[in-house]
Amino acid sequence: MTLRGRGLASTVVGVGRDPRTLDEARGRGVIDRATTDMAEGVAEADVVVVCTPVSRIAVDVRRAAEAAPKTALITDAGSTKRRIVEEVEQSPRAADQFVAAHPLAGSERSGSAFARADLFRDRVCVLTPSARTPASRLRAARAFWSALGCRILEMSPAQHDEVVAYTSHLPHATAASLASAVPADWLPLAAGAFRDGSRVAGADTELWTAVFRENRGPLMTAIGSFQDRLATLKYALMNDDEDAIRRWWADARARRAQFEALQPPES
Amino acid sequence: MTLRGRGLASTVVGVGRDPRTLDEARGRGVIDRATTDMAEGVAEADVVVVCTPVSRIAVDVRRAAEAAPKTALITDAGSTKRRIVEEVEQSPRAADQFVAAHPLAGSERSGSAFARADLFRDRVCVLTPSARTPASRLRAARAFWSALGCRILEMSPAQHDEVVAYTSHLPHATAASLASAVPADWLPLAAGAFRDGSRVAGADTELWTAVFRENRGPLMTAIGSFQDRLATLKYALMNDDEDAIRRWWADARARRAQFEALQPPES
Repeated sequence: MTLRGRGLASTVVGVGRDPRTLDEARGRGVIDRATTDMAEGVAEADVVVVCTPVSRIAVDVRRAAEAAPKTALITDAGSTKRRIVEEVEQSPRAADQFVAAHPLAGSERSGSAFARADLFRDRVCVLTPSARTPASRLRAARAFWSALGCRILEMSPAQHDEVVAYTSHLPHATAASLASAVPADWLPLAAGAFRDGSRVAGADTELWTAVFRENRGPLMTAIGSFQDRLATLKYALMNDDEDAIRRWWADARARRAQFEALQPPES
Repeated sequence: MTLRGRGLASTVVGVGRDPRTLDEARGRGVIDRATTDMAEGVAEADVVVVCTPVSRIAVDVRRAAEAAPKTALITDAGSTKRRIVEEVEQSPRAADQFVAAHPLAGSERSGSAFARADLFRDRVCVLTPSARTPASRLRAARAFWSALGCRILEMSPAQHDEVVAYTSHLPHATAASLASAVPADWLPLAAGAFRDGSRVAGADTELWTAVFRENRGPLMTAIGSFQDRLATLKYALMNDDEDAIRRWWADARARRAQFEALQPPES
């Protein structure tokens, strides 16, 4: 929708498995035309954006590289990067065309009904080039994601995975733990703190099972840090240690304030 | 603001310690007049709503009962109920006038700048009468909170505290744990899941230190349930057990869907 709205692409082709999903997307003006045949869909592409679950991305990037023009940029939108980059780079042709990307945008909803033309505005997009990524291709990826409205950051695939284990995958793990910790009968007394704290537990099961497995090492470390913080509170509660509870809360509040100070206005 | 907007009160008097805070509230049209003298403020009241931190509520209810007309309803807005009700009921006069209430509304923001006339619309308000609460007073409390737009639930003070330990205090504990678990340098890569998951970590330190202490027994139990859910995920990750991760996520997603089904339209 952003590509079409900003006139950045003459044609946006949707490639997928389910013709009904593709018809819906076309009906909503999200894509210009649709196909279930990857080779046909990418045959004349300038840019291919692979948006499949993380366990599928590397395979789909390699398939796209076989069928797309050699000049095409191939990028993705996956939440993990290390294994995907390693697997893509086992194919020299795919390695030459691919620049791994993770736009930090979206929600727990999936499907074209939740598409928004302003999804990427002021959002960070992390690019994770490797030693094999051609400089010209990296420039093209920067230009593409910037044109959608993103602010670009670059880091290695492994560093990306370590950081997002804390900033994205951990919040998903805690949201889902929170959702299932509250007995169903008591949900009528759940309000704003539960609503926001468990929001992303509504996200797709297969997608998040795949993300968690892809990044399970860094995620276990992040969970460990969280468990330490929560155990510190529980210990302070056990001792009814007012100063320790106050310090614990004040630390968290200060970190939250740091996060808020980083947000663009109006977001 | 709701009382004034709906014409439910001829005069709303703000009682507080800080004249500047009271002036701001009056300037914003939240209250009609202000005083730092509790006895003066409640002298002609039909209804007194005590909105101090939970560790102060019982004392303030008893002080209000000494100064308000015997016909006045005294209610509160505290997040815990058991100890407050016990302490209030040590005074026969206060016990006769007080109906403990917990409106499930508000946010992590405090101060009259964040006041909203529609704050209570379609929100649950839990009333926790005891055996000593006069039936006429309970009817008055139901009428008062209903007039503000709340849906009324009733339960015992102890049951209330057990339930909100899970539905409200636990989400605050996990939000704050999440906020401080993420290293400050990595916050630029934190997006929607972190933003919503840590939102209430921005709430007032003294207020939440007091709530946690008041309800520390039930809260420790709720934290234990949460810790079990998170440890189950960590164990499944350690074993790269795809089925276990999928089941774990699907359980959480189903509970979140139950919560969403309970929400009033448009909320």
